[in-house]
Amino acid sequence: MRARHFWVVGGDLRQAKLAELLAEDGNTVHTYGLEQAAEHQETVREAGDLTHIRQADCVILPLPAAGEGGAVLTPFSKRVLPMEEIFSAMAPGQLALGGLIGEKTAALAEEKRVILQDYFQREELVVANAVPTAEGALQLAMENLPITLHGCRVLVLGYGRIGKILARQLRGLGAFVTVGARKYEQLAWAEADGCTAQLLRDLPGWLCGYDLVLNTIPARVLTGEMLADLKPNCLVIDVASKPGGVDLDAAKKLGVPVIWALSLPGKVAPVTAGRAIQQTVYHILRERGI
Amino acid sequence: MRARHFWVVGGDLRQAKLAELLAEDGNTVHTYGLEQAAEHQETVREAGDLTHIRQADCVILPLPAAGEGGAVLTPFSKRVLPMEEIFSAMAPGQLALGGLIGEKTAALAEEKRVILQDYFQREELVVANAVPTAEGALQLAMENLPITLHGCRVLVLGYGRIGKILARQLRGLGAFVTVGARKYEQLAWAEADGCTAQLLRDLPGWLCGYDLVLNTIPARVLTGEMLADLKPNCLVIDVASKPGGVDLDAAKKLGVPVIWALSLPGKVAPVTAGRAIQQTVYHILRERGI
Amino acid sequence: MRARHFWVVGGDLRQAKLAELLAEDGNTVHTYGLEQAAEHQETVREAGDLTHIRQADCVILPLPAAGEGGAVLTPFSKRVLPMEEIFSAMAPGQLALGGLIGEKTAALAEEKRVILQDYFQREELVVANAVPTAEGALQLAMENLPITLHGCRVLVLGYGRIGKILARQLRGLGAFVTVGARKYEQLAWAEADGCTAQLLRDLPGWLCGYDLVLNTIPARVLTGEMLADLKPNCLVIDVASKPGGVDLDAAKKLGVPVIWALSLPGKVAPVTAGRAIQQTVYHILRERGI
Amino acid sequence: MRARHFWVVGGDLRQAKLAELLAEDGNTVHTYGLEQAAEHQETVREAGDLTHIRQADCVILPLPAAGEGGAVLTPFSKRVLPMEEIFSAMAPGQLALGGLIGEKTAALAEEKRVILQDYFQREELVVANAVPTAEGALQLAMENLPITLHGCRVLVLGYGRIGKILARQLRGLGAFVTVGARKYEQLAWAEADGCTAQLLRDLPGWLCGYDLVLNTIPARVLTGEMLADLKPNCLVIDVASKPGGVDLDAAKKLGVPVIWALSLPGKVAPVTAGRAIQQTVYHILRERGI
Repeated sequence: MRARHFWVVGGDLRQAKLAELLAEDGNTVHTYGLEQAAEHQETVREAGDLTHIRQADCVILPLPAAGEGGAVLTPFSKRVLPMEEIFSAMAPGQLALGGLIGEKTAALAEEKRVILQDYFQREELVVANAVPTAEGALQLAMENLPITLHGCRVLVLGYGRIGKILARQLRGLGAFVTVGARKYEQLAWAEADGCTAQLLRDLPGWLCGYDLVLNTIPARVLTGEMLADLKPNCLVIDVASKPGGVDLDAAKKLGVPVIWALSLPGKVAPVTAGRAIQQTVYHILRERGI
Repeated sequence: MRARHFWVVGGDLRQAKLAELLAEDGNTVHTYGLEQAAEHQETVREAGDLTHIRQADCVILPLPAAGEGGAVLTPFSKRVLPMEEIFSAMAPGQLALGGLIGEKTAALAEEKRVILQDYFQREELVVANAVPTAEGALQLAMENLPITLHGCRVLVLGYGRIGKILARQLRGLGAFVTVGARKYEQLAWAEADGCTAQLLRDLPGWLCGYDLVLNTIPARVLTGEMLADLKPNCLVIDVASKPGGVDLDAAKKLGVPVIWALSLPGKVAPVTAGRAIQQTVYHILRERGI
Repeated sequence: MRARHFWVVGGDLRQAKLAELLAEDGNTVHTYGLEQAAEHQETVREAGDLTHIRQADCVILPLPAAGEGGAVLTPFSKRVLPMEEIFSAMAPGQLALGGLIGEKTAALAEEKRVILQDYFQREELVVANAVPTAEGALQLAMENLPITLHGCRVLVLGYGRIGKILARQLRGLGAFVTVGARKYEQLAWAEADGCTAQLLRDLPGWLCGYDLVLNTIPARVLTGEMLADLKPNCLVIDVASKPGGVDLDAAKKLGVPVIWALSLPGKVAPVTAGRAIQQTVYHILRERGI
Repeated sequence: MRARHFWVVGGDLRQAKLAELLAEDGNTVHTYGLEQAAEHQETVREAGDLTHIRQADCVILPLPAAGEGGAVLTPFSKRVLPMEEIFSAMAPGQLALGGLIGEKTAALAEEKRVILQDYFQREELVVANAVPTAEGALQLAMENLPITLHGCRVLVLGYGRIGKILARQLRGLGAFVTVGARKYEQLAWAEADGCTAQLLRDLPGWLCGYDLVLNTIPARVLTGEMLADLKPNCLVIDVASKPGGVDLDAAKKLGVPVIWALSLPGKVAPVTAGRAIQQTVYHILRERGI
C-alpha cells in the first residue's frame, strides 16, 4: 500500500481515531477541526488553516458529514466549518469522502467541482457498523436486566444486518433466541443460524415468554397491543432508526421499560467505528486507483 | 392448520419422506411412483392409477421435477411417468408444485392448464437446503482428511448461502476459517462472523497455508495456477454446481485431491431435505389461501 | 416436587428474589429481615418475629451468611439479626442453609444443635455463579473499552471455572482469545475450546499484543514487570478474589487501567444468582429426603 | 527449543506421523519397525538394527506400547519387536516413553534399568485425544443418520472430557443438546455450556424425543429398559471403552441401531493424534530438563 496524504476534517472520536489509524499506516495526515481530540497528538497534525488542503489525495468528512445547519460537525473544535468553505479551498476534481451526504452538500460539491462520494453507501461499512451496534445493544441489556443474557429468552425483531449479528452474539453468550421477521426467507436464515423463528404476524399472543425484546425494524412493529402482551419487567431495546419500532406512548402507559438506542457505534466503540471507516476509505481509493 | 389432500408423484427418498411427514400432520396423502420406498407404508397409500389425482389440493413433483427425457424421475418405482400423463389426468386449474422446473415442463403445464409453481425458486427452500449441503461437505472433509476439522486451516471460497453456513459450522467445530470472496461486502460479513477474509484476487501467493479448500463459487476460480500454490495433500472439496469451480484437468496433473460433491442434501440428509420441501409447500399453500 | 415451608432470613436482592422464586413453585415462604425488598410483596410474607421459624422445613441464610460482626447481613431491613437469635429460635435438629459459613457461625450452630450446611460448598452453585461473574466482566469490558469485544485480542489468565466460561463467551462474541495458565492440562482444554494457549511462565515478553487482560487467578500473577509489558491503554479486569492478581501499586505507577471486580453475580444479575441458590437448595433437600 | 535425537519404535500411522513431525522441528529422528509407513521417507530414516538406539535422547513407543503378547505393536513393519530386545539395547538410565504401559512392560523396564514413563497418563494428552474422539463420533452420526446434525435432538450421556467436547461441537453445528449425567455439578457445567441437562436417574420415561444418543460413560447406562424407550430409528453411538455403556443384546432384540466406536483418534485423525503425542513428549522432556 503506498503512502497517501489525507485531511480529516471535523467529526467526533471516530474521526479522531481514524486520523490516528491512517497515520499509523504510514500516511501523512492533517486534521482540521479536531484540535481538542487529545488522542492523536503525536502522529497527526492539526492544520492552522485550509491553505494546504489542496495537497491531499483525499479529504475525509464525518458521518454524518454535515449538521442541521449545513456546516461540518465539529464537536472537538472551536472552529465553525461551513461546508462551502471546505469545498472552496479544495481543488476542482479533488476527492472528498463523507458519510450520509445530504442533497444540499452534494449540490454544493457539484457547484465547486469537488468529487464527493458517500462512504456510508458502501455495504461493507454498513455491515461493519452493525457489529458495534449489536454489541452496544447487548451492553445496554446487561446493564438494565437483573438476569444474565446467558439463559435469557430473547426475541429479536427483524433479521437484516443488525438482527443477524445480534442473534449470533446472543447465542454465543448462551441466550435462547427467537427471531420474528416478515419473510419466510428470513425465518429460514434464522433457523439455519440455530434460532427459533416466527412470522411477525404470528407473534401476537406468543409474547409473554420473553425476558428481552430487541427491535431492529424501522417501522411501528411493537404496537400497544403487542406491548400489552409482554410479561411484566420484560425489557425492550430498540435500535431501529427513526421513527423507531416501538409505540412509546403506549409503552409509557403500560409501564413497559423501553430503551431507544441510536448511534451506538460512535458511543460504545469509537475506535472500532473509526477503523471501519478507514477500511472503507482504503477500498474506495483502491477502486479509484488512487 | 387444516387437513389437506396431497398427491406426491415420483421422486427419491426426499419425496418418500415428504409424503410421510405430510401424513403425520394429519393430511390425506397418496403417492404415485413411489411404491418401492418402504418407509411410508403405514400412513401413506400408493395409488393404483391416476384416476383420483383430481381430488388433490396439491400435486407435488420431485426436485428436479423431470429427468432428461422429460418424464418424472421415479427411482423408487417401476412406473414410467411421462409428465404429459400426469398433467392430463389433473383438472384444469389444479395446482402442481415441482422443483427446478424446465421450460418444456412449464409449457406442457400451460397447455394442460395446470397451475405449476416451482418450489425451488423459493428463497427459504434454497437457504434450508444449504444446511445439508454444508454438513455433507463437512462429512466428506472428515472422511478424507487425516486431521480433525478442529484446528484445521480452511479456506472457504464464496460467501453466499452455502459459504456462510459452511463457515459457521466450521468455526463451531473449532476450525480456523478464511473466506475468499469477490466483494468487500462479503468480506465484511465474513469478518463480522469471526472469519479472516480476503479478496479472491488477493489470494494467489497465499494459498500454501491451508489444509482444506471448500469451494462454493460456480465459476472456474481454482485455476491451475491457484492449485499449484496449495501445499501437498491439501484437500479440495467443490460443492458448486456445474461447471464447478475447479480446473479438474490441472488438479489431476498436479496430484491435488479434489472431490466434486453435487446434490448433497438428498444423499446425506434426505429426511431433512424432505422436511424443507414440506415447509415450503405449506408456505406456498398458505399464501395461495389453500 | 412436594411443597415445602421456607424461611428466608436476611440478605440482599438475591435472597429477596430467591424467596419469590420459592413461592412461585408453590412453597410457603416467609422472609425475615427483608421487609424493604419491594419485589416480593404478593407471594411472600415478612414475619413479624421469629416465633414460627420452627415450622420451616428449611431456614435459608444469605451468601455470605454473616457480616463481620457475626450478625446476618440485612441490607434490606432495619432489623439487626444476631446469628444467635436466629439459631436460638430454631428447633434442635432443624435445618439451616447458608453460604460461606465461617467457623464462628458453624460453632454457634453446633452449640444450638441446629443442622447447618454451606450451600456455597456445592460445586454446582460455584459453577452456576461463574456465569454471571463472567458476564459481569464482559459488561465492564464493554463499558470501559473504546473497541468492541468482537475482534478484540483478549488474554484470559487462569482456566478454572470462570476462565473457561469467560473464554467461551468471548469467543461467542467474536474475540480472539489467548489463555495463559499454569498447567499443560489447562492449555489442552483451552485449545480444545478453540483458544490459543500459553504457559503463564512463557508469557513475559509476549504481552504487548492484547487489548484486554482478564485475570481469574487469585495470586499475584500480574506483577509490575508483566504490567510494564502491556501496550498503552490495555485494560486489565481482575475478577479474582482477595488478594487479587494484580500489583495495584505498580499498575498505578505505570498508568495501567485496572478494574478489580468483586462479587459480580449479586451486582449484575441478582435474579440469576438467586435462581442458582434456589436450585442448589432443592438439590440439598432432595439428597436429604426432605 | 534445542534439537534432540529421537527413536520412534513401532506403532501405527500416528507414530509414523509423529516421527515426521519431530523431524520437521529440526530433530534427528530414526524409526525402527515403521519401514512400511510411506509418509516419512525423506526426513526420517528407518534404522537397520538397534545398535545406535543408545544415542537417542528419548525412545518413543506406541499407544498402546505393547500388544497382547508383550511385543511392541508394529502394523507397519515385518519386524517382530519383543520389548525385551528394545530395552536390552538401550543404555541404563536412558529414557523411553510409551502409552498405556502395562505392568509387565513396566517391570521389564525396571529390570533393564530403563526409565519408562507413560505419556497417556498425562492429562493434556487425554484431553487432546478427546477432540478426535468426539469428531469421529460426529462423523459416524453424519454417515448413519438421514437427517442433519443441525436441528438434531441429541442426548449426550456423561459430561467428562469427551462429553463436554461432543456437546460443544454439536451445539456448534446447530444441534439441540441434552446432557444426562450423574452429578449436579456436571449438570451445572452442561447448562453453563448452553445445554439442557438432566440427572441420569431422571431420564427413564423421557427418552422418546431424541434422534441420536451419544454415550461416553464406561458403565452399563443404556439398559434394555432405557433402549426400549427410544423412538424408532434413534441411533445410538457408544464411544465408551470396555465394557461399553450399551446392553448390546437388548439393543439387538429391540432393533435399536448401535455403533460401538473404539479407538477413534487413530482411525479418523492419525495426524492430529500424532501431533498430540508430539506435544506431550515435548512437555515431558521440558519438565525433565532434556
